[in-house]
Amino acid sequence: MKKVAVIMGSDSDLPVVAGAVRQLKDFGIPFEARVISAHRTPEAAEKFAKSARGNGFGVIIAAAGKAAHLAGVIAAYTTLPVIGLPIKSSTMDGLDSLLSIVQMPSGVPVATVAIGAADNAAILAAQILAVSDEGLAARLNEFKEKMALTVMEKDKKLQSEVDNL
Amino acid sequence: MKKVAVIMGSDSDLPVVAGAVRQLKDFGIPFEARVISAHRTPEAAEKFAKSARGNGFGVIIAAAGKAAHLAGVIAAYTTLPVIGLPIKSSTMDGLDSLLSIVQMPSGVPVATVAIGAADNAAILAAQILAVSDEGLAARLNEFKEKMALTVMEKDKKLQSEVDNL
Amino acid sequence: MKKVAVIMGSDSDLPVVAGAVRQLKDFGIPFEARVISAHRTPEAAEKFAKSARGNGFGVIIAAAGKAAHLAGVIAAYTTLPVIGLPIKSSTMDGLDSLLSIVQMPSGVPVATVAIGAADNAAILAAQILAVSDEGLAARLNEFKEKMALTVMEKDKKLQSEVDNL
Amino acid sequence: MKKVAVIMGSDSDLPVVAGAVRQLKDFGIPFEARVISAHRTPEAAEKFAKSARGNGFGVIIAAAGKAAHLAGVIAAYTTLPVIGLPIKSSTMDGLDSLLSIVQMPSGVPVATVAIGAADNAAILAAQILAVSDEGLAARLNEFKEKMALTVMEKDKKLQSEVDNL
Amino acid sequence: MKKVAVIMGSDSDLPVVAGAVRQLKDFGIPFEARVISAHRTPEAAEKFAKSARGNGFGVIIAAAGKAAHLAGVIAAYTTLPVIGLPIKSSTMDGLDSLLSIVQMPSGVPVATVAIGAADNAAILAAQILAVSDEGLAARLNEFKEKMALTVMEKDKKLQSEVDNL
Amino acid sequence: MKKVAVIMGSDSDLPVVAGAVRQLKDFGIPFEARVISAHRTPEAAEKFAKSARGNGFGVIIAAAGKAAHLAGVIAAYTTLPVIGLPIKSSTMDGLDSLLSIVQMPSGVPVATVAIGAADNAAILAAQILAVSDEGLAARLNEFKEKMALTVMEKDKKLQSEVDNL
Amino acid sequence: MKKVAVIMGSDSDLPVVAGAVRQLKDFGIPFEARVISAHRTPEAAEKFAKSARGNGFGVIIAAAGKAAHLAGVIAAYTTLPVIGLPIKSSTMDGLDSLLSIVQMPSGVPVATVAIGAADNAAILAAQILAVSDEGLAARLNEFKEKMALTVMEKDKKLQSEVDNL
Amino acid sequence: MKKVAVIMGSDSDLPVVAGAVRQLKDFGIPFEARVISAHRTPEAAEKFAKSARGNGFGVIIAAAGKAAHLAGVIAAYTTLPVIGLPIKSSTMDGLDSLLSIVQMPSGVPVATVAIGAADNAAILAAQILAVSDEGLAARLNEFKEKMALTVMEKDKKLQSEVDNL
Repeated sequence: MKKVAVIMGSDSDLPVVAGAVRQLKDFGIPFEARVISAHRTPEAAEKFAKSARGNGFGVIIAAAGKAAHLAGVIAAYTTLPVIGLPIKSSTMDGLDSLLSIVQMPSGVPVATVAIGAADNAAILAAQILAVSDEGLAARLNEFKEKMALTVMEKDKKLQSEVDNL
Repeated sequence: MKKVAVIMGSDSDLPVVAGAVRQLKDFGIPFEARVISAHRTPEAAEKFAKSARGNGFGVIIAAAGKAAHLAGVIAAYTTLPVIGLPIKSSTMDGLDSLLSIVQMPSGVPVATVAIGAADNAAILAAQILAVSDEGLAARLNEFKEKMALTVMEKDKKLQSEVDNL
Repeated sequence: MKKVAVIMGSDSDLPVVAGAVRQLKDFGIPFEARVISAHRTPEAAEKFAKSARGNGFGVIIAAAGKAAHLAGVIAAYTTLPVIGLPIKSSTMDGLDSLLSIVQMPSGVPVATVAIGAADNAAILAAQILAVSDEGLAARLNEFKEKMALTVMEKDKKLQSEVDNL
Repeated sequence: MKKVAVIMGSDSDLPVVAGAVRQLKDFGIPFEARVISAHRTPEAAEKFAKSARGNGFGVIIAAAGKAAHLAGVIAAYTTLPVIGLPIKSSTMDGLDSLLSIVQMPSGVPVATVAIGAADNAAILAAQILAVSDEGLAARLNEFKEKMALTVMEKDKKLQSEVDNL
Repeated sequence: MKKVAVIMGSDSDLPVVAGAVRQLKDFGIPFEARVISAHRTPEAAEKFAKSARGNGFGVIIAAAGKAAHLAGVIAAYTTLPVIGLPIKSSTMDGLDSLLSIVQMPSGVPVATVAIGAADNAAILAAQILAVSDEGLAARLNEFKEKMALTVMEKDKKLQSEVDNL
Repeated sequence: MKKVAVIMGSDSDLPVVAGAVRQLKDFGIPFEARVISAHRTPEAAEKFAKSARGNGFGVIIAAAGKAAHLAGVIAAYTTLPVIGLPIKSSTMDGLDSLLSIVQMPSGVPVATVAIGAADNAAILAAQILAVSDEGLAARLNEFKEKMALTVMEKDKKLQSEVDNL
Repeated sequence: MKKVAVIMGSDSDLPVVAGAVRQLKDFGIPFEARVISAHRTPEAAEKFAKSARGNGFGVIIAAAGKAAHLAGVIAAYTTLPVIGLPIKSSTMDGLDSLLSIVQMPSGVPVATVAIGAADNAAILAAQILAVSDEGLAARLNEFKEKMALTVMEKDKKLQSEVDNL
Repeated sequence: MKKVAVIMGSDSDLPVVAGAVRQLKDFGIPFEARVISAHRTPEAAEKFAKSARGNGFGVIIAAAGKAAHLAGVIAAYTTLPVIGLPIKSSTMDGLDSLLSIVQMPSGVPVATVAIGAADNAAILAAQILAVSDEGLAARLNEFKEKMALTVMEKDKKLQSEVDNL
């Protein structure tokens, strides 16, 4: 199976990005995690992105905050699908990260997920790999069914909680 | 090759969505275009999404405006990657569409592109299919190189334009 | 009397939604509370909405956060009035929920109340039922008068508090 | 059948509000239209709202722009359901109107629809009246089915349009 | 000297509004503080506003949050200058209050100060009364000079603080 | 009677500011209009503001756009009430002007009116002068009554317009 | 004198960026203009930025729109001051460009000017070069004085325009 | 070497501004720190700005919050480059400060950095001085290399942290 790269602009993003790592592990998808900064180690970003397809990666998740250029810079150097994960910083409630990632110009898309939605970044990566991997598609279906069951169980438990209000 | 579905919430979105259609044609990617409304024909949305993988689709592009639920509703019924294309309506400058599409809850991602960026939706679809299709990956590389050449040509022409300012 | 449905997208919304439940109890309005997710249990949403009128419901309150599609998905399947209650999530201060709920396209309205205003969702539901229920209309008048009295009492107490500043 | 009141803060709102009037006519719902300003004729607002239920109204639609207080002022004086219709003015793209209408304090809800969504205000009014009016509920069902048919027809026509792109 | 009215929509606003009360006391300006709600006690608002000029008031400060209609409702019933003080609520960071107060339609202005700026509301009230009161104008000049002196003293102390960084 | 100063940051603001000039003329209030820029002629701003009270001004209206500092700079040098009029520029829909004017720090208020609301700036100036001028207060009352009459006339005419929709 | 680089992400930005070019010509500052895209010609961006100081540049102006990464990418590869000029695109009114440029992470600043303020980008470049160039500093002083004179002339002409309103 | 001025509108800004002071010390750049308020000590601002170039300053950093006029007021009186540092206040998450600083009108730029990015303000000041100071340029290069090394070290450590998730 192709690997997923999980790149973050700063190791301070790890508490959020961890959600993606755990989800990839749950799906049994091979991955590599990296700290690469579009602004502080731009050559590492370039080098990584240029060789990513050749190195066996199928999807790249790029997480960054504020003027979040990491996903766009990676996307500039590869034709692999790049998933952008906006990280909320201390101001602007993540809106700056979201717009910096999603509003990419014509020709170089970034597949953007919700602010801080690390698990969804991993699920989207799995969905992309599952286009040509029936086993993974089956695991995604199980995951979806489990989610539904969890909601249905909570639905059943709700009545008694509501009675006590 | 797997097909791409291009779904729009209203036929009034076609002038924007046309950019995706043209780009898919340029890449030689088979596609089907549909008008399906999450709110007016929800059963068509459900039926389409549930059978999409079985019907040979690999990626779904869903374009909608305002409280844009189409991409999310489709994503609720499939594990295929769903690309959300926010359409700008007469108010809010597309921010409502963007947030309604990108801010998906845990478990059900939508791969969101920029407001009105129909060509990028198609390119992202191509990138996703190209993960397991070397021929398409090669076409994406050519596309990227052509874009670079176009910029470089414009760069050369700029000097005389600037001299005349 | 017709029943009110109180649906929430996640049981984590209950601390907010509880305000609606308590208010309905205070008014003596029969209700049922459910956890139904537009994205994780879409078929439950469809089934509930399609049979709601037949099952004796008169109004549906739908509470959700982020890209809040629940109210719109319910409204797609029923002609009962649907009240949308935006829940504030960890980013965007509820603006994403509000816009995802209120900016519904032509033909399928959602009656949206303020972000987190669970009590107002219940009062609006009562007002809707009271259009054809004079007893409930009388209870709403009493509620309104009590609110006024409470403000007037606080107005009287204010002077001494202000003197001590 | 109870009447619907359609109140606008200024006659300059009529081009937008006309959509509500036409929709009410289509449904055969009796209505009265008024120009009443929360700020310029506050006593007319008070007088209208206080006597609305007694005068045979079942629902009030209040349309206003900018610091749109009309719906809230009407709601202060009645327990009828009040539908707020935000009108986009020359600045702020309707966000000021939307927030001024929807963010009502505890105890006094306004059922807010999308910015400029006059038809949806009327449909919501019809849904409210239809809670206890099976004939109107049937007309709403027909309306919903017609909408679906229109979308399905557009879906059929789309293919040829797309082929020509 | 004419009195200043300090009206708040809810007694929960008092911790913020207290800043206005203290400032008025410091200036020796007579005032009355009231809890009056535009939505819960609209008749009290009307009665207060209509008789304010006759009752010896020169300026009215109106503080409210969310869809803050209080200042506008008061301004509808009087030609006295009304100062609007937006209160930040639990969502939207005060933007809803600000826009609901400042974006008044043509003909009925509200003199709006910064979100939560209770002291500035009081200073503005003092400035308005001082237009025709030379003694108060002199006190405002002293206040302005004291503010300048405080800044200058802090400027002097800064150097040592900076040296220790 | 004290004079009103109408200051604009650029003569390009005159088409908007003209509304204030006309309103002041209608009220028969003496005024002087000036082009003074906080950034290009800061010394003129300082000189004007410092001598404004002595030169017979009672209120200052300051209109500016973008990072609109004019009102704040004037307010720094005078204890007269300063009315800030935000002008919408080519971007940001006036939000930048509004926030730059209204969010003044503690100690130096600016009485802000709606974006582009030049007539309201003049009416507010009149209200301020009328605190100690009964003749002007009477004219303001007449103005308010005329506004109400205009709305009531439009209310009467509405019915036939609505019938024709 | 060191040169100024004027880089734009697309030749479609030239109508705005022309204002910077003209201003640099007026100041007699040598410059070079380039079309370089952070996303389409990233290697040209890297090459340009790495060699800019050695090639005699003192300041770099980078203009871009939407998810505007150009200024940040250039700043990643040089220690020259980089001036970011946000270009307004068809949606979001330039807010996306502004936040993508100004919200740079710790360590890599971009000196951001107002949305579309090409002349100010050039003036800021001139101010930076003038720190060590007294001749240019003198020309900036003249420029500032001329601006003041222009405002003062408009101030004189205003009176007659106002009389005719 | 020319000095850098670090001006803040209030001593309450020092905890943020300290980051700029420390960074300047690290670079060995001479500086002076001041508390000067555009609104409370406007004459100090004028006096400082007019004499800054003559007093040996090369760059001015101006930090302020809310309706942050300090940078603009300083820039009005000098042709030195002025760096604006927006400080986040208790509401609006710094957006008011950012827009008040960055959206300067034509002719008077302010070089704006990210909200609260004190270190970047200092680095930008260093970059400006380094245009004509090769020693400082070398120190900036070392700083940039150290940043890269820090990121690379964190990249190496990441693997084990990720394994433990």
